[in-house]
Formats: sequence, C-alpha cells, structure tokens
Amino acid sequence: MRLEKFVSLLNERGFGGAIISPGTNLYYLTGLHLHETGERLTVLAVNADGEYQLLAPSLYENVVRNFPATFWRDGENPYHKLAWILGELELSSGRILIENTMRADWLINIIRLGNRNFEFYPLSSVIRELRMRKDEEEIEMMKHAAKVVDRVFEEILSWDLLGMRERDLALNIELRIRELSDGISFEPIVASGENAANPHHAPGDRRIREGDMVILDYGARWKGYCSDITRTIAVGKPDEKLIEIYNTVKEAQETAYRAVKVGKKAKEIDAAAREIIAKAGYGDYFTHRTGHGLGLDVHEEPFIGPDGEVVLEEGMTFTIEPGVYVPGLGGVRIEDDVAVVDGRGKRLTRADRGLVVL
Amino acid sequence: MRLEKFVSLLNERGFGGAIISPGTNLYYLTGLHLHETGERLTVLAVNADGEYQLLAPSLYENVVRNFPATFWRDGENPYHKLAWILGELELSSGRILIENTMRADWLINIIRLGNRNFEFYPLSSVIRELRMRKDEEEIEMMKHAAKVVDRVFEEILSWDLLGMRERDLALNIELRIRELSDGISFEPIVASGENAANPHHAPGDRRIREGDMVILDYGARWKGYCSDITRTIAVGKPDEKLIEIYNTVKEAQETAYRAVKVGKKAKEIDAAAREIIAKAGYGDYFTHRTGHGLGLDVHEEPFIGPDGEVVLEEGMTFTIEPGVYVPGLGGVRIEDDVAVVDGRGKRLTRADRGLVVL
Repeated sequence: MRLEKFVSLLNERGFGGAIISPGTNLYYLTGLHLHETGERLTVLAVNADGEYQLLAPSLYENVVRNFPATFWRDGENPYHKLAWILGELELSSGRILIENTMRADWLINIIRLGNRNFEFYPLSSVIRELRMRKDEEEIEMMKHAAKVVDRVFEEILSWDLLGMRERDLALNIELRIRELSDGISFEPIVASGENAANPHHAPGDRRIREGDMVILDYGARWKGYCSDITRTIAVGKPDEKLIEIYNTVKEAQETAYRAVKVGKKAKEIDAAAREIIAKAGYGDYFTHRTGHGLGLDVHEEPFIGPDGEVVLEEGMTFTIEPGVYVPGLGGVRIEDDVAVVDGRGKRLTRADRGLVVL
Repeated sequence: MRLEKFVSLLNERGFGGAIISPGTNLYYLTGLHLHETGERLTVLAVNADGEYQLLAPSLYENVVRNFPATFWRDGENPYHKLAWILGELELSSGRILIENTMRADWLINIIRLGNRNFEFYPLSSVIRELRMRKDEEEIEMMKHAAKVVDRVFEEILSWDLLGMRERDLALNIELRIRELSDGISFEPIVASGENAANPHHAPGDRRIREGDMVILDYGARWKGYCSDITRTIAVGKPDEKLIEIYNTVKEAQETAYRAVKVGKKAKEIDAAAREIIAKAGYGDYFTHRTGHGLGLDVHEEPFIGPDGEVVLEEGMTFTIEPGVYVPGLGGVRIEDDVAVVDGRGKRLTRADRGLVVL
C-alpha cells in the first residue's frame, strides 16, 4: 500500500526506480526490519511499474517471508545477483533514487555494474513527502512512546537527585525506558548547573548540587516510532535569573504550540517561539531551531526553523523545544512532541511543564 | 605519521587521493573522534602529495584543534566549500578512495560537484594493509579491553543465574562492561538451552534452567579498541552429548590457537579448528568462520575462514572462536582474542576455558 503510493510519486517526479538499503525507509515501505546486515549487501530494488525484489544474505532466509526475495550466500558475489535483478526489473538507465544512508562502497559497486547509465538521487527527496504525514496508526504508536517518557519523568521526580552524577542519572533513565518500551530513541542528555548552558552536553561526572537547574532530554522507541521529551527541573531553589529564563522558555513553548495550524509554514511556528525569547532579551541565547520532525527517525522532516518552508498538514508530527543557554550560568529547554490533528496542534507528551523545585 | 604511511601506500597503488568520512579509519589516521555529525557533511580530503584538509560543521570548531580544517555553518552549502578544498588540493580527476561507510547521499553530491572526473574505490582496500598490523600501543589497549571481559566473566560465575532471563543477564553484563571500560563493543549475546543452537540468537525472555548450556558472547571498548570473548557455561549438569561437544570445541580452539604462526595463511588456522570438529563428526554443525580480525572495529581484516588468503604477520590481532550448533539440543562456542607476538599466537583474553558447571 505504501509501496504503491511511493511508486506513483516516483513516476510523478520522473524517476525510473529506487535502490533501498535497510533502515527506516525500507521499514516504512515494506515492514521489513533487517537491521543487522552490516556490510553484507541487502537492498530492495523497485521499478516505475511497481515491480520489486529484495536481495539479502542467506542469513535472512528465515526472516523474510511472503516477500519477493533473492538470497546470496557467503562466497558468492552479491553484485552479480543484483545485476540479474536489475535486469529482470529492466532498470538499466535513468534517474534512480538511492537510500541516503546506504554505504558508499555499495553505491560504488552499483556504479561499476557496467552497461548501465544511471543518474543517482537521494531517496529522501521523494519519500519525505509520504513519511511527513502520519496516519492514525502511526500517531497511536507515537502516543505510546510519548506516554513512556511522561511516566519516566514522573518517576524521576521521586528519585533522590541531589549528589547524583549526571551519567548515573542518564543511565537510570535509560534503564527505565528499556523496561517500559522497545528502548531509547537516543542517548539521554542530563546537563546540570553550568553544563546546561551547552545544548550538546554529554552526561559526565558532575554531581547535581543544591540550586542546580537540570536539563533532562530523552526518548523512547515503540514499534519503530520515537518520542523525545525535554524537561528542566530545579534541585533546590535556583538563581532568580534562571527562574525568569524558565518562565520565558515556557511561554515561548506554549506560544509556538498554540501557533500550530494546518496551512501555516514551519518557520511561522519557529518565529512564534523566537519572538517571545527575543522580547525578553534572550534572543542571542536561543541558538538552535525550535523543533524537528519526529517519527521513525528522531530527526526528520518537517524541521521547525527560521528557514522552514514546509506547510503544516494534518498528521505531521514534530517537536517544539525552545531553549535559552547562558554561558557560566546554565540553561533551560522545554520540549514536547506535537501532532497536527483536526487542524491544530495536539501534544503527545503531557508531563508537567510548570517549574518543579525538588 | 600514520597519515604519511597512508599517503605513500596510496601513491604506490596509483590513487590520486582520498575522501574520508568519520569512523574508525579517520580516527586511525588522525586521532579525530567526530562521531556524532550525523547527516552533516564531515570529510577529510587527502591528496597524493600528502596535503590534507578537514571539512566539518561549525559545531566542531571547539573540538578540532591543531588540524588544518575548514568549517561550514547551518544555512551554508557545504559542498561549495568541499569543491573549494578539492581545488586547493588539486583533486579534479583520477582514482579516488572513498570511506566505505560514507553515506551514499554524500557520495552522490560529490559525484555532482561538476568539472571533475573521478573514479571511486573503497578506502578499505588500501587502509586494511596498515590497520591489520597493530603496533605495541594498540595491542596494549586491546589487552586492557580483554582484561575487562575476563573480569566480567569471573563476576558472572558468582551471579545466581538459575531462573534469570537471558535479556536480564545480557543487561547485567552490559552494565558491568560500561562501568569498567568505555562501553560495550557490541550488544551482548546470551543464548541458553536450545537457543544456543542459533549462533545469531538475540537474548530474549527465556529463563535459564537446570541443565542448560549458556553461550555468553560480549566485548568491551577501551580507547577505541575492542575485545570480544565467548564462553559457554553449564548451569547444573548438562546432557552428556553437550559435554562431548564442549570438549571437541575446546580442543578445536586450542589446536587453532597453537597453529598461529607468522607466515601461515588465515585459512590454515581455520582448517586446524575445522579438522578437529569434522573428525568428531560435527563438521556440518560448525556453520561459521573460525574468527575475524579485531581492533578499532569488532569485525575487520584478517578474517579467519576457509577462504582466508591473508598471510599472518607480527602484530595481527583476531579472534579464534569455533562453535558447534545442534538444532533442538543446543550449542557451544569458545572465543579468545589472539595477537601475533614474537612469531606466534598470544591470547589476550585469558578467562577459564575449562567447562564450568554452576
């Protein structure tokens, strides 16, 4: 069904076919989850007539069922089999889509197949049109992934955080996510005190101290779909300035959320958050985009930034996560996952956004 | 120093230059550890005169120091900067090496740069010659990574394994490795009872039962270098047949280990293990290679299989891990990391190989 839609889009855009290696696009189109093939050639070839064939290592013979597939064994040259498949699909020239994350050595070998005259284009340019708009089933899975991170946040508030190392808190968060879901969607970020001024901080040996604001940014995966939440909490009474920043970021996040409507451009949502923060005098300290699309990948289209030209549509899902980072002082970020439902934004993550002082 | 060696090898083989994305090869050549650039173009360009320049996102301006580098900011087109760098390095045509794991969309954009006539080849074909032979410092780091997995094995023997789920045992192993090293080198495998008959088993909900043989396969990372150990233990008295298999695999592993000598081919080491197992009547149940090279990657050259033509040299490091897998009954695998030192094999992992019955 998704493959059919993809093939009609491929025709519309004038492409002759696609060669797709394992990853979220292959999973999206076929439901095949072939994650551990490593360097062993594994690709789905599709032509513009909607015919397709998977080539996979024989290791997968018991995993791939009810799907047109050819297998190759250790010792065989898989590119000979690929050449045969491309021949069967009559793919010998023209504009071909290639999975963006395919290994370059596979593409080099495809270029070398001989007697072919392909022009290669990244698959993302076409498939993003499909993946950006989630159906109800996809949004249900994202809701579940969001519930997991909400629950973990509630639990964190009951932990004894004072004196805990950032890395230990990150590990505890990861372990709870692993128990409640299919695993983490990315390595949890815990940034405390002045470390919170760095939006890319990796959790380290710093122990949480009285008066710290602590940024917690983590996500879960459920049946392939990601959640991604950020909350900033205070352990002991924080600096007045940080409280002011917290209130500013919270207002920016709320305002951007309310701005979400079908027909608006992504950059309008970004501007809504940016304006509040600039007015409060922190414009130079909001150093990243307001958000990013979320789905099978933890970063995907639509990106919610100053150059976001995507027009919001029903079923789009993305984060809204303004932040302010003041070197030497600390930082605040608040992030929710949002879906466009019935024309407007609907929060998937629902954990308390008020300033929690532990 | 390594870059110089690489450039002279590149000249020897008739290549005009290389374009190298982040990963173990970039780390090996430069010491640069740029692991989280994701889809943001990050490459080292090298020409045959030994001149080079790194192109990286501005995010890395504070990380990359004392290294010739150009940075690009969000909003800029990084391929314009790459075209400029290739111009400076006078790389416009000829045989160019490409990092095997580079994203295909980067390579597609490089192909499109225009006014250039490159022929692309995988980097591994050249750099493997260097990486296969470890120096003393590298072997020291591998020894450390090996000590960690030895120690974890000793600890496992003191745990109460009866009734434990495979996945929980795998998690406990992972947590101990994370405490003692820079992290796991791959997801630990725990395969109990009849699950041990599948060499690719993923740890699941099965609980360890009286009489099980349990395969434990895990590794640690230390300053980039990997260890990889497998031990098979019995929880309660196992089936006589499995004890016989255990002794066969142990003898095969020992024999292959003793066969390691400078000047021998990898396939001779494989044959030494395979012969013992075949003689005992289990030839059809030894379904994989005897081992694989180990270093910055957990699978690299030299591969120790029936088609292994690499001639062993001082400093090479690889696993020796014969196994026998009998569907419905179970399996046994014993794996050590071995370095070629003073002309012969030296085990880096040293945990007890005798049959432990808990």
